[in-house]
Amino acid sequence: MSSIDLNADLGEGFGAWRLGDDDALLDVVTSANVACGFHAGDPSTMYRVCRLAAEKGVAVGAQVGYRDLAGFGRRRIDYDRNELRDDILYQIGALEAFCKAAGDRVRYVKPHGALYNTAAVDVVQSSAVIDAVLAYDAALPVLCQPGSVLAARAVEAGLSVVGEGFADRGYLADGRLVPRNQPDAIVHDVDEVVTRVVRMAVDGEVIAVDGTVTPCPVRSICVHGDTPGAVDLARAVRAGLAAHLAVQPF
Amino acid sequence: MSSIDLNADLGEGFGAWRLGDDDALLDVVTSANVACGFHAGDPSTMYRVCRLAAEKGVAVGAQVGYRDLAGFGRRRIDYDRNELRDDILYQIGALEAFCKAAGDRVRYVKPHGALYNTAAVDVVQSSAVIDAVLAYDAALPVLCQPGSVLAARAVEAGLSVVGEGFADRGYLADGRLVPRNQPDAIVHDVDEVVTRVVRMAVDGEVIAVDGTVTPCPVRSICVHGDTPGAVDLARAVRAGLAAHLAVQPF
Amino acid sequence: MSSIDLNADLGEGFGAWRLGDDDALLDVVTSANVACGFHAGDPSTMYRVCRLAAEKGVAVGAQVGYRDLAGFGRRRIDYDRNELRDDILYQIGALEAFCKAAGDRVRYVKPHGALYNTAAVDVVQSSAVIDAVLAYDAALPVLCQPGSVLAARAVEAGLSVVGEGFADRGYLADGRLVPRNQPDAIVHDVDEVVTRVVRMAVDGEVIAVDGTVTPCPVRSICVHGDTPGAVDLARAVRAGLAAHLAVQPF
Amino acid sequence: MSSIDLNADLGEGFGAWRLGDDDALLDVVTSANVACGFHAGDPSTMYRVCRLAAEKGVAVGAQVGYRDLAGFGRRRIDYDRNELRDDILYQIGALEAFCKAAGDRVRYVKPHGALYNTAAVDVVQSSAVIDAVLAYDAALPVLCQPGSVLAARAVEAGLSVVGEGFADRGYLADGRLVPRNQPDAIVHDVDEVVTRVVRMAVDGEVIAVDGTVTPCPVRSICVHGDTPGAVDLARAVRAGLAAHLAVQPF
Repeated sequence: MSSIDLNADLGEGFGAWRLGDDDALLDVVTSANVACGFHAGDPSTMYRVCRLAAEKGVAVGAQVGYRDLAGFGRRRIDYDRNELRDDILYQIGALEAFCKAAGDRVRYVKPHGALYNTAAVDVVQSSAVIDAVLAYDAALPVLCQPGSVLAARAVEAGLSVVGEGFADRGYLADGRLVPRNQPDAIVHDVDEVVTRVVRMAVDGEVIAVDGTVTPCPVRSICVHGDTPGAVDLARAVRAGLAAHLAVQPF
Repeated sequence: MSSIDLNADLGEGFGAWRLGDDDALLDVVTSANVACGFHAGDPSTMYRVCRLAAEKGVAVGAQVGYRDLAGFGRRRIDYDRNELRDDILYQIGALEAFCKAAGDRVRYVKPHGALYNTAAVDVVQSSAVIDAVLAYDAALPVLCQPGSVLAARAVEAGLSVVGEGFADRGYLADGRLVPRNQPDAIVHDVDEVVTRVVRMAVDGEVIAVDGTVTPCPVRSICVHGDTPGAVDLARAVRAGLAAHLAVQPF
Repeated sequence: MSSIDLNADLGEGFGAWRLGDDDALLDVVTSANVACGFHAGDPSTMYRVCRLAAEKGVAVGAQVGYRDLAGFGRRRIDYDRNELRDDILYQIGALEAFCKAAGDRVRYVKPHGALYNTAAVDVVQSSAVIDAVLAYDAALPVLCQPGSVLAARAVEAGLSVVGEGFADRGYLADGRLVPRNQPDAIVHDVDEVVTRVVRMAVDGEVIAVDGTVTPCPVRSICVHGDTPGAVDLARAVRAGLAAHLAVQPF
Repeated sequence: MSSIDLNADLGEGFGAWRLGDDDALLDVVTSANVACGFHAGDPSTMYRVCRLAAEKGVAVGAQVGYRDLAGFGRRRIDYDRNELRDDILYQIGALEAFCKAAGDRVRYVKPHGALYNTAAVDVVQSSAVIDAVLAYDAALPVLCQPGSVLAARAVEAGLSVVGEGFADRGYLADGRLVPRNQPDAIVHDVDEVVTRVVRMAVDGEVIAVDGTVTPCPVRSICVHGDTPGAVDLARAVRAGLAAHLAVQPF
């Protein structure tokens, strides 16, 4: 592997409310997961991020989620498969309008929040994501966790899957993340974060919390922008990766 | 003029709520103004209508409106120009996803409700509609009332404008509609409606309420589907037009 | 038992969309479960139903549900307990404003849709309902299914619980409903429906699908108004009950 | 006048999004205008603010606005009078639930954003506000600008009106505010702000931008909490007022 992508969630404000530092992140990441209005994101924010991303050569992906502004898409909703597919199609199309107006196009799809977590383990919801991508454009890659139900089924369905690693999350020996309510869920030390992402990106592996060297075949590293220090951490991750690989969109 | 289009608002349900008889209208009209989710319309309804329209050769246009589900887009909202442009872009893109999934594409844009009425007389809101179409696809026609501010400014902006006539509405001598709160606002007699639409479509004129023969250069006739007897009226209008002209999408 | 209540869901339209025949049902039922705006119901509809209910002596209860207009509250959402409590409190208060303006007050709380079903079996969501009632007014009865987790826990929490029976639903021997996707889920014959509700109301029992005589201690019978023939069925149920008991609010 | 109230908008976050520093303001103001969920505010935020306000002896008022989360209630909407009344009633009731759960009650009503500005000059929208208060509780004061159409009509309708002055806004000689797009719209100097509010509160007058001494009969001073330095300014205003008057809820 000679290059690595760096992705983050952007455009997660809504109307008068802001969240995260979109401008700063657009100078750090190579792929922007832009919220599409169902759990976060409003049209003017979407357009603004798409324009800036196009100017800076950042790839735009559809950060699709549940229809749940009040819950920020973080509460699992038991959707019917077709209704979820259609909600996802709608969001991809909406974002495409702004990419098109900015002279670009949607480059990938990444589920958000509870949809991300549910599609990682659930047949119905992973199928809905896959159905939506197949219906929209079967050439559109899906950005998700290696080893997830979504990743496996998307590959079976003939879709392109891009695995992502989490810069500051602890891993279990089976490749899953340490749940957030457990110790070691978050890696706080910046140097350790950088060391870990370089190992993920260069060697495709990560040291799990029990010390096991665990395969972690990723083509993108996910960083966050909505917590204090997050942008600085993202910059450190980029610098660390750039010392070993080209940092560019997948 | 050797052909005429027949358009109606479709897909105006939301979730569990239905409105109008989409299936019956899809056998009558040649153009379906599909609601895009901001004032009416949900993703699954949009997809369903787009699939049926594609099967039946009905052209799909984006029925764009204000973000106001509770008011059905019928209450004027004083939008900032760019925010309105972005809300419209979002809606066009969302509908495009379903057209694309159905093997077709969005064929035109028609403002709905209070946006239709406001853009007909207001510089800011007509500009927002035009900005959105220019940003999305300058080849996309705008369906609106002949003589409106929107029609005039869209032509100036280089857009294609399709004038529409209202099958069952009374007209003033200056080409505007008789306001709904006045007598003669609605033409109830089916035969009279048919006679009027044929004259609009064939001769480009209409008899105003004061008897004046008024120019009414239309390439599409708008019918409704959400009132009792509306579908029957639409069928009569289609039959009447078909006796003189090809009834087909513009 | 010398009286029985008859309840139905009312006020389930939203904006331009109507659902069910509120006016007809208000002449049949003794308790109106009024939707409070989160899964259905808009302020003007709520006010209208509250005014008519006050005129006709129909008790008004808060039909509380998930924040999910697009899904009509029928999709389970994994709420945090406190967030769900607060969403319920909000809805009860909103309805209270219209009851107050109509010269009455909210008489009970009944969960709707997926919240009804989830609270019937789930500790977190039943607790949220109970927390909300305790915080608002511990004297407010909860209308729910006898034998449910919600009923049991509400009694433990010191709340008043009113058990309801379903006029046209088949029952299992353990007192639960036959799932909707199974045969015998719905009782279609009007005479049979009437016989069954009278037995529930007078003797507190129901014949389950396997023939078992099952306890069904109910003080209210739930009828529906949103399907063809539903209002006629409701009228027949009322007439049948009235031959044996006083039909009046609990 | 021997006392003065200090009010600010609170609880204006929504879900994951925060706005302003509620906790800091609750230690400064004597009245909290709590957003009720239509233009801002979610149930859990409302409950939290109501509990803290009850603990600190801060009066809670209903900050009622248009149903427009995306526009934060800042875009004028042409509501039907009764629909606006009902939207306002709904919001008051919802807030009342949290006040009640916190051991208190709603103490006043203050329109927000475009509703504030429109009701200040418009008969329909001021009437809707008045209708709502009359329907809910005719003893509930309305907090608004002295000299506004709302103030005048509310007095005519028999309501209690509390006039408010704006701590950091320039005034015209006729008592209206200098529009925000003009120079002198905002008073930036802290000492000048304090001097002005003391004069408003003690003498009921303000120096207009043209030097005229203008009557400004206020019983409450409005401060903001959502801009940098706003909380510090609010503290300075309180300290300045406290040197001359009791600072307490009206």
